Formats: sequence, structure tokens, C-alpha cells
Amino acid sequence: MKKPAFLLLLTAIICLTANGQRKIINLPDLPGYVTMKCDFHMHTVFSDGNVWPSYRLSEALRDGLDAFAITDHIEYTPKKAYVPVDLNAGWKIIESLAKENNIIAVHAAEITRDMPPGHLNALFIQDASLLAVDSVYNAIEAAVKQGGFILWNHPGWKSQEPDGIPKIYDLHKKLLKNGWINGIEFFNDSEFYPLVLEWCKQYNLAVMGNSDVHGIISESYPEPEYTHRPMTLVFAKERTSAGLKEALFAGRTLVWFGNTLGGREEYAKPFFYRSISVGKPYFDNLRNIYFEVTNKTDIPFYLVNGPAGAPASITLNANAITRIVLSKKVTAPLVYDVKNIMTGDSAVLKAELKF
Amino acid sequence: MKKPAFLLLLTAIICLTANGQRKIINLPDLPGYVTMKCDFHMHTVFSDGNVWPSYRLSEALRDGLDAFAITDHIEYTPKKAYVPVDLNAGWKIIESLAKENNIIAVHAAEITRDMPPGHLNALFIQDASLLAVDSVYNAIEAAVKQGGFILWNHPGWKSQEPDGIPKIYDLHKKLLKNGWINGIEFFNDSEFYPLVLEWCKQYNLAVMGNSDVHGIISESYPEPEYTHRPMTLVFAKERTSAGLKEALFAGRTLVWFGNTLGGREEYAKPFFYRSISVGKPYFDNLRNIYFEVTNKTDIPFYLVNGPAGAPASITLNANAITRIVLSKKVTAPLVYDVKNIMTGDSAVLKAELKF
Amino acid sequence: MKKPAFLLLLTAIICLTANGQRKIINLPDLPGYVTMKCDFHMHTVFSDGNVWPSYRLSEALRDGLDAFAITDHIEYTPKKAYVPVDLNAGWKIIESLAKENNIIAVHAAEITRDMPPGHLNALFIQDASLLAVDSVYNAIEAAVKQGGFILWNHPGWKSQEPDGIPKIYDLHKKLLKNGWINGIEFFNDSEFYPLVLEWCKQYNLAVMGNSDVHGIISESYPEPEYTHRPMTLVFAKERTSAGLKEALFAGRTLVWFGNTLGGREEYAKPFFYRSISVGKPYFDNLRNIYFEVTNKTDIPFYLVNGPAGAPASITLNANAITRIVLSKKVTAPLVYDVKNIMTGDSAVLKAELKF
Amino acid sequence: MKKPAFLLLLTAIICLTANGQRKIINLPDLPGYVTMKCDFHMHTVFSDGNVWPSYRLSEALRDGLDAFAITDHIEYTPKKAYVPVDLNAGWKIIESLAKENNIIAVHAAEITRDMPPGHLNALFIQDASLLAVDSVYNAIEAAVKQGGFILWNHPGWKSQEPDGIPKIYDLHKKLLKNGWINGIEFFNDSEFYPLVLEWCKQYNLAVMGNSDVHGIISESYPEPEYTHRPMTLVFAKERTSAGLKEALFAGRTLVWFGNTLGGREEYAKPFFYRSISVGKPYFDNLRNIYFEVTNKTDIPFYLVNGPAGAPASITLNANAITRIVLSKKVTAPLVYDVKNIMTGDSAVLKAELKF
Repeated sequence: MKKPAFLLLLTAIICLTANGQRKIINLPDLPGYVTMKCDFHMHTVFSDGNVWPSYRLSEALRDGLDAFAITDHIEYTPKKAYVPVDLNAGWKIIESLAKENNIIAVHAAEITRDMPPGHLNALFIQDASLLAVDSVYNAIEAAVKQGGFILWNHPGWKSQEPDGIPKIYDLHKKLLKNGWINGIEFFNDSEFYPLVLEWCKQYNLAVMGNSDVHGIISESYPEPEYTHRPMTLVFAKERTSAGLKEALFAGRTLVWFGNTLGGREEYAKPFFYRSISVGKPYFDNLRNIYFEVTNKTDIPFYLVNGPAGAPASITLNANAITRIVLSKKVTAPLVYDVKNIMTGDSAVLKAELKF
Repeated sequence: MKKPAFLLLLTAIICLTANGQRKIINLPDLPGYVTMKCDFHMHTVFSDGNVWPSYRLSEALRDGLDAFAITDHIEYTPKKAYVPVDLNAGWKIIESLAKENNIIAVHAAEITRDMPPGHLNALFIQDASLLAVDSVYNAIEAAVKQGGFILWNHPGWKSQEPDGIPKIYDLHKKLLKNGWINGIEFFNDSEFYPLVLEWCKQYNLAVMGNSDVHGIISESYPEPEYTHRPMTLVFAKERTSAGLKEALFAGRTLVWFGNTLGGREEYAKPFFYRSISVGKPYFDNLRNIYFEVTNKTDIPFYLVNGPAGAPASITLNANAITRIVLSKKVTAPLVYDVKNIMTGDSAVLKAELKF
Repeated sequence: MKKPAFLLLLTAIICLTANGQRKIINLPDLPGYVTMKCDFHMHTVFSDGNVWPSYRLSEALRDGLDAFAITDHIEYTPKKAYVPVDLNAGWKIIESLAKENNIIAVHAAEITRDMPPGHLNALFIQDASLLAVDSVYNAIEAAVKQGGFILWNHPGWKSQEPDGIPKIYDLHKKLLKNGWINGIEFFNDSEFYPLVLEWCKQYNLAVMGNSDVHGIISESYPEPEYTHRPMTLVFAKERTSAGLKEALFAGRTLVWFGNTLGGREEYAKPFFYRSISVGKPYFDNLRNIYFEVTNKTDIPFYLVNGPAGAPASITLNANAITRIVLSKKVTAPLVYDVKNIMTGDSAVLKAELKF
Repeated sequence: MKKPAFLLLLTAIICLTANGQRKIINLPDLPGYVTMKCDFHMHTVFSDGNVWPSYRLSEALRDGLDAFAITDHIEYTPKKAYVPVDLNAGWKIIESLAKENNIIAVHAAEITRDMPPGHLNALFIQDASLLAVDSVYNAIEAAVKQGGFILWNHPGWKSQEPDGIPKIYDLHKKLLKNGWINGIEFFNDSEFYPLVLEWCKQYNLAVMGNSDVHGIISESYPEPEYTHRPMTLVFAKERTSAGLKEALFAGRTLVWFGNTLGGREEYAKPFFYRSISVGKPYFDNLRNIYFEVTNKTDIPFYLVNGPAGAPASITLNANAITRIVLSKKVTAPLVYDVKNIMTGDSAVLKAELKF
């Protein structure tokens, strides 16, 4: 059949769908680093997802991400009766679109096995088809040989760990010894695993959090209940693919899901202090002084366990200025637990309001 | 490779994604007919859409539709480098899922040509691959031979009619004479063509309105700006595929998009009167009587051009009771133009409030 | 000063502000009774509220209430430096506006004392000023002599019961013996007290739930988090002030707050069965039958503890049709606990899905 | 009657209602000036408003305002049967609350007369009761003698100017000559009057925009349809009452309502250039260069009438980064009309995108 003339026009429209506008996410940079907002786990029709790869790019742009990875399953391709298996299809479809849109696409795939070792995303690879081998050990090795970053996904997923508690098996120990696990998902989809924070400290790994979306981001994390998808915040020397990779291997990350941050204290602490500013007292009377704390970020902070005489708890709403009324009798430093910044299995960040 | 054990579980999850709940749309039935809410125009990855066919079914269920058709382009399959052309794929994927979910799927395809005749959806066909022939006339004939209902899509689409005005060309006249055009889209995506209302009266065709969605329904018609996708309301003797088909060939339809209804007066009038009820006066004083009009539907009605002395305009909000304060001096019947019920190129429904 | 001409116009606008549209709340009537939606507890600038009485009427209309009471505090009038105490002011301002708007206003006031007896709303009174006497016993007697219905408000309010548990004191026993307590708030503002359900059964009192709003309803119960304010559903023989009063003294009520209903089983059971309808099976295969349950109300129902082999839990979304897939092996009746219909301190409604 | 013990607690709660959090509004400062967000026109129960004065303060805080004025009518006090006339009541109630909450309250009142001169707000006065005199000329003089800033409200209000067109009458000319009109409302409630932009240039007056709210701000400007109430942006040397007053008399303002800005070009131009930043090109190919424009403000900008070969129109969404694809053939400067920044009766800002 002859191609009708109007099809050229349709094609043009399709190119444009990947355009559009990137939302600004209000989060601070860290000294010497740019904060990259990333989602390293998502699926398309090339495995068990419901959408075309370019749609993932549109979603990522709209959400204001700096980087994203399509991670279709290598071993699970339930649509193959209609869509022939092509483990690099996602990457091929988005690679140049990403460049045109100033977003960093990461070539990736998901090694999808029984536990242990469970599921692992290989990020920054060159050819996913080389990972389609029987032995999971060999599959991981193939990814590592390509320069891949190995991310252990949802270690406490109930389908593989019925009690919901992640466990390090012998195979994981071997992989860790090899340096073949470089990050672990602390958060995935709607679950988080506090133990992962301890493991990442112990093994010096990147704490990660991702959507693992199969459907539609805006329907999975709808406004106004959600303001953002789950994401990994990466503190990179520069906003490039190389910068991103270096930062991930160095473990410079935090995870943001819902209103919770999780990660190592060394990043959480400066992140918090750069998120807020404490104003000079603007008013006082016989009993109290009045001052304000400005939170310029999209994350509210819940401060609890204040010192005697001070407000027991303080909520610093996102993108808001909070008034604090402090008794003049309080002389102790205003140290609080930041309830929604997790730094360990049962630890949260301690922070001081200084004015 | 051996199929890992957990994949059985993944498969089970996928079956469930098509389940869920159907929203109730509040619209009246007509005497002797059930009002079926339908969208007969949508695309998937099998042509230029962005989603998998089963996702269209999930959307239709959630939106409370009674029937829907996947209408992938026959002549335009831009993803064929990755997805081999299979013109019946959408149907095969949704057919049994639809039965399990008590929603009626219509086997369909979109004949996609230059103007004339432009784009035509063939509904209620048996095999879309038989429509993939060079001559558009032969393609339509192949659909008709299968018992197909031929819907002329977006006749004023600016890509094919730069002035936005639909035109009946000689080829359309021939098709109409053959009985090979059975309905026309009065509304498509975000455009409507008032002339279509006149043509449907003249040629005794079904007035149709559809989404033509390529992306995501919830993102194309987001709440609260939208309460529903555009749809064709079909007045069927029974809620079955056969009932739907009979009603469409008989032209018993209205179109609902945004807050506008369009179609023939013979259906619009009883539809309006069954949408509202006028209460007895509940209060009066020297000057006025007070009564209420109840609108139990999801459609607000905008009444304008009231008789002298009566309220000039009345808005009957959706799912609401509206108070009317009427001067006792008014003796004329309370006849209004219902501004948002279009019955012709420049005509709207006239209706009377009787109590 | 001469009154400028435009002020007539301003006055006209003010009259209109009480007009507008009543939202339809989708809830079933009970056999022989109309379900009246009511809020019997709200404040204005005539005690410690922030708005003018006519604004409460506007809110009530918009929310689709059938009846409401302004219940300003008798003993607590903190704005009296600017607003002279007038205990009947709220009633005088809304009485005729309510008639013009087909909403029932209840003349009322709140007796506001330390515990016991705490706070009590006197509903259906004639003159609130007669309740402004030192002895609370005499104040209640004055209300009763006017035909008043005595509602014990928020019996577990933490400002008066620091442990949050309501208690029946000797004074309450005396009042109950006199027949001087006719209803108790099971719900108030954002708190509920399950014990109240037992007391209302024991003493044959009306179970009540109200907003106790001081600020703005739409800000206290914002969409989409809330779909409605807390309310008392009253099953009246007719939608009149007399019908309402008769039903309240007879104790024919349920309380609806958030997604929870509370009250006596004798009203909760028929209310539930009239809320839903179970369809005939529409599909079956070797293993399962498929049927639908329609919930035409604004209240979702959460069914739990299903019989062996049947779905363990079923959510019947509000205004939605839910598909049920039932194993053919299940022969037991489909009896569930309706988790969100409370009928006692630790009891919920048991209900059966029959098709 | 003895005051019950719990009332102390109620009083404490009431003090707290004025607390809370100030939303951050994202707007740039101008060089040497801080941008103050202000609403200088609102009513309470002390004239024809529906709320208590402290509620206006709560709304202003929540909305992130820096300054506000309660401007109850002097000549129109329809609630006086219940609320004795006290023209300074609003001010007395909010004065100290405002200081405790770091928001600037302006002592004010509305002179409310037939046209001419219509309604005028007297801002920064000392005693509103001195303005309650028969002659409007004397009333204005009384305000001026107190150091008042005279704002001419809604000059084209249809109740006073049925054609909606504002007119300068002889009395206005006299007032202008005296220096007794210092600002005019370009926007009020939901109306704007482009002519006012010309008059403010001609007479060197402050362009103003205010809500004139009588009911509830969150209901008058509901999310997500609105992101903010209408406001006057004042460019002040310091965020104090004195700084505000100096800036107003100097006419350093812009008005922001809906998505529209209005005011003098000398403030609109730097405001626009400080709102956006144009990035370096990040990509190019044979035909095009790609760059981004960042708009860090809450105001979208609609650029139209681009030079030949460049995008004809560009929308810079609020708080978003917009990608621009520019043909390498374009050599003309990228000058656009900013459609939603009005600088005159029929003029909009012209601005250039430079990278």
C-alpha cells in the first residue's frame, strides 16, 4: 500500500509527544554536588509493563527527573506472542529522544530470578542480550564486564520473602565479596526495608529507591495524595551520565518516597540543613520569643522529641514558613529527631534548629 | 532457560489487573431502552497508541463504560520494527477478558486514508486483516460483508480539512448511497463538528462521539477539570453486543463530551425530561413562589432565554437540586433553550419546566 | 448620613447568597421513612465561631443537608466586647431564610458546663435566653419545658475526660431517669466514642454525630480527602420539622462520618441492604462464577471475614459496581462483617450477599 | 455565672488558631527591593462580610501574604442590629495578632459612596471613625490628614458603571489634583479594567489588585482552578509597614490575578527577566539547536508573536523548565509578546529570550 500523505504529519506529532516541560522539584544541592532526581526501575511492553518506552520518557520529563532507566525483565517476557523479545528495545527507542530532551537515559535490564539472589537491575550496560544466560552468576558477571552497576531490587518482596524481611544469602555474600552488588533498593513501589540502610552502611553500597512501575505513574502516585513518584536522589559532581555513574558507585544517594527520606547520615544531615533556614526572632514578649523556620523544599519535616519546655514537636511544611513560639526559659539547644529522615534500621536524623 | 517459580505468581497478578470496579455514571435510561455508555475509538501499541490493549479495557471498566472498541490503524503501524503487524491483536487480547468483566468489546479497526474518505472505523467485524487492501472502496466493502458498522471519523480534522469544516465528497455520497456509512463522529478527542448533526438527520445515521485516545485517558481528561471521557450514549433494547449493534444501525444515540450533549431531538428531548424532576412549590410569599428542580444526572444543564419575568437563565447543576424563585406575575410556560444540548448545526433543545 | 442608592443593590446580593444549589447525597431511604441528612452542632460569631449565621445556612445547603441547628454556647461568649450577647440571634437570622430555601432550621443552643454533665445541645427550643441560669439542672429543665430534645455532646472530649473515655456520672443518671437526655454524640468533629453505641441501646437514645464546626466546613473537611461533613442520618416519617423531631425522640438515626456508619443494628441492617444490590451471575467457567454487586451510595463498604473459599475481603466502592469471582466449591452463605458499620462498642454489622 | 474551668482551655485554643504556616509564594524580588504580596481589600462581620477579623488574618497567613488590610465599609453596616458599629473593630482585633505572626496589618476602612467618587479604601489611617462624615470630600480629607493612602476601588464596577467602563469624573479630577487618589484597582474580585493602567501611568499612581472578599478566600479562589488569590505585589525597600507605605506612595507595584500580571513596564520588565533564566544550548543537530528556559515562579508566561522561523508561541509553565527547539536559520533576536503581562490598555510586555 502507498503511504498516505497525512502520515508524515502523524509522525511529526509522535516526535513531539516526547517534548514538553519538566517540572521543577524543589530540593537542595549538596556542597560540591548537584542533586539528580532519578528512577532506575520501570517496565514497558517489552516485558510485563503496559506502555511503550517513549511514554516512560514523557513521564520522567513531566516529573522533573534528571535520569531514568527502563529495566525490562530479561527472563520474563509474557507478551512475546505479539512482541518479539528484544532486550535492548527500550534503550534503542529512547536513546536519542533522551538526548534531545536533556534527560539522561541509562541502558539497563532486570535480571529476574528466584531468591537468592532475586531480582537485580544491571545499570549502565552496553548490551542486555548478553545477560540472557542460564547461570545468574554468569549473567551478573556479563553485566559487570560491561561496566554495569548492580542493584539488588526489593530484597524483602513478599513473593520471594513471605515474611517481608530481606535476608542476605550465601550467594549475596559471594556477590558482595566480588563487588558485584553496588546498591540495594531500600524502597520499591510501595514497600520499604529498613534493614537495607544498615547493609548499605556495612557494605558501602548505594541506598536506592525506585517506582518499579508497570502501569502509569500518574495513576500509581496520584495527586494530591502524592506529590511525586519514589526516587533516588544522587549527589553527582556533574549532571551527566558519567557523573551519575561515578556518584552511584561512590554511594552518594538518598531515597525519597512519600514524605520520607532514607539514607546515610553523612548525606541526610547536610541535606536537611540546606533544606531549611532559621530566621532571627522577629517578636518577643515577657514569656516567649517568636521566630520562623523556612522550608524551601517539597519535603515536609516532622521534628519530634524536643527539649523540655520547647515545643514537643514541630512540623515544617513543604514550601512553607513555620512560626515557632519559644519560651524564654528554654536554654537547651533545640535538638529534635527528624522523624521522617531514616538513617538506620531504627535510627532517624537528629538535627538542631539554630538561630 | 527454566521458567522461575515466581513467574506463576506474576502471571496471576496480571490477570487481576483487568478486574476492579466500574464507576456508576448517572444518566437516565429512555423508555424501552437501556442507556449504554460507549467509546468506539482508541489506539494501542499495535498501531500508534502508547499502551497495551488490556490497559484500554481497564480504563473502560474504571470509567464505567458498557462497551468499547479498540480501533488500531490498518495502514499506519509505526511500531512495526518492534511489534509485527497483527490487525486483530487488540481483539484477541481483550475478547475473553471483556466477558469475564461484564463489558462488551467490539471487534474493530480503523481504515486510515487521505481525504476523501478520510478515516473510518469498521465496528463489529470478524477479521481486520481482510480490510488491508489497496482500494479503500474494497476495504470498506470487506468490512460491510462482515456485517460491519462503518463510522466516519473526525470529518473536520484539520490535518485533512485545514479549514476545520467537514465536507461530503463524491466518494462519501457513493458510500452513503450504498449504506456504507452508518455513523459520523460529531465529536472526536477535543473537537466537534455541528454540521454532522444535520447530516445524521438527513442520512439517518448514528451521531457518534469518541475519545480517539492514543495516550492515557486519565491524563487526557483529568479530574476535576473533566468528570468523564467523551462517549457515545447508545439506547439499546438490551445490554448485549447484539443489542448495541441493532441500536447503532438504528441511529439511537446521543453524544456526551465535556458538559455538552449532541444528537437528534427525538432522543435529546426524552433524555432531558428523564434527567430532571420539577418539585411542587414549597413556599410562597406575596410576590413569588419557590420550587426546586432536581437533576439526578452527571450533566449540568444550562437553561437560557426564559420567558419575560422569569429568571432569564437557570443552571441545573449535576447531581444537585436547584431552587427557582418565580414571580407570581409570570403566566407564560417556562420554556427555555437548553444551551448545552445541541440538536442541529445551530439549534439547541427547547424544554419546558412544568410543575 | 443618607443611604446611597447602590446599597439597595448590595442588600439584594446578600439575600441571594443564601440561595444556590443543594448537592444530592446518595443514600437510601428506609421503608416508610425518608432519610434526612442533618448536622445539629455548629457555632457562629455569637459565641466562639468565626462566621455569620447565614453562612452556616449556605454551607448546609451546599452540602445537601435537610436540617441543621446553630448551637451557640450559652455560657461562653468570648466576642461579647464587640457582639452583645443574644442567645437567639442565630435562630432569628436564619429562620425565614431557611424556609425560603427548603431547609429545616432547628432552634437550639449549647449548655456549656464542666463535666458532669459537660456540654449539652438543647434542640427544638423556643427561647434560648431562658436557659441562661446558674444551675445546669434548671437550665436543662427550662429546655425540656420548651419541648427541647437534649443531646449530650462529645462525652469523651479530652478537655473534660483526659483519658478520652466517656463516663456516666450520677448527674447523668438523674437526667436519664428524668428522660432529660435524648441523644448522645457518638461522633463529634474528629472523634468517636464506641461506648455511646451501647448506652444508646441501653437507654433507648438517639445515636448522633455532628461537626461542631467553629471555622469553615469546606476547610475542615476538604475534598478530595473528605466527601462530606459528619452528619446524623434521621429516618423520619416526613421531611418536616415535626417529622424530624418525632424521629429523633424515637431514636431512629445512624451516624455517618468519614467512611464509617454507626448506630443500632435495627437501622444499620436495612440501610445496608437498601444500599447495595447483588446481580445475577453473568459469566462462569469450570472453576468460578462471576457476579456484580452495585453500591449506589456515597459510602464504600468494607466486607471482611468471608467464608472459606470465598474472597476473604471485598470492597464495595461508593457509586460503583464491584465484580466478584466466586469459586464454585463455595456452598456456605456469603456472610461478611461490614467493617465500617459499627453497631456496638466492639460489634460491626454482619451481612449476607445473596444472589 | 461562674466561668467554668475548661473555658481557659478554650481560650488557649483560640489564640492558637491564628498560628500556623505561611505558604511560600515563588516570585522574584527586584534589585534593591523585596516583593511584598498584599491584599488591601476585605470585609468582615463589622460591615457586610461573613467572617470574624481574625479569620482574615488566618487566611492571609496561609496564603503567604506579607501584608493585608481589613477595609470594612464605613457607610454600610447591615449587621448593626446585632453588631454595633465600630469602625476600628477589625484593626483592634488583629493588630497584636499580626505582630505575633510576622505579618503586616494595615489599619484601613472603605469609604462607600455613589459614583462619583464610588468606593475608596483609606489605608494607613489612625482612626476610621473620623471618616464617618456626610461629605465624601471631608471624609477623604480626614483620611489624608491621618497620613492615609487613598485607593480608588473597582472604578468600572457594573453596579456603578453599567457599561463596565471606568470614567474619571470631575470629582476624581479634583481629588487627583489634590493628590488624594494614590492608587486605583486595576483588578477587583473577578474583574479588571485595562484603562486603569493608562491612568496610573498618567497620574503616577499605584496599580492595585485585591480580592474584596466578603466570604471565604479558599471557596472564592478554589484549588486547583486557582493557585492564589488576587494580590498587589509591592516592591518595598524593607518588609515593614513603613517600607510598604513608602513603596505604595511611590507607585512601585504590579498586580497578579489568575495567570495575569498587570502594571507599569518599568516594574514588569525586570520582574519578567528575574522570573526566568535561559540555559545554554545542550544539544544540536543539522537543523536545530535545543535549549531550555527555566521559570522558577508560580506564574506561567505565554509568549506569542515570535520572529519568523522561531516557534510562534512558547508557554513557560510555572515552576517548570521548557525545552525550546530553534531552527539554525533563525538569526533575529527572540523577541516575543508576553501575552499575560499587561502594561497598558492594549499593550503587553515585549521581552527577549537571550542565551
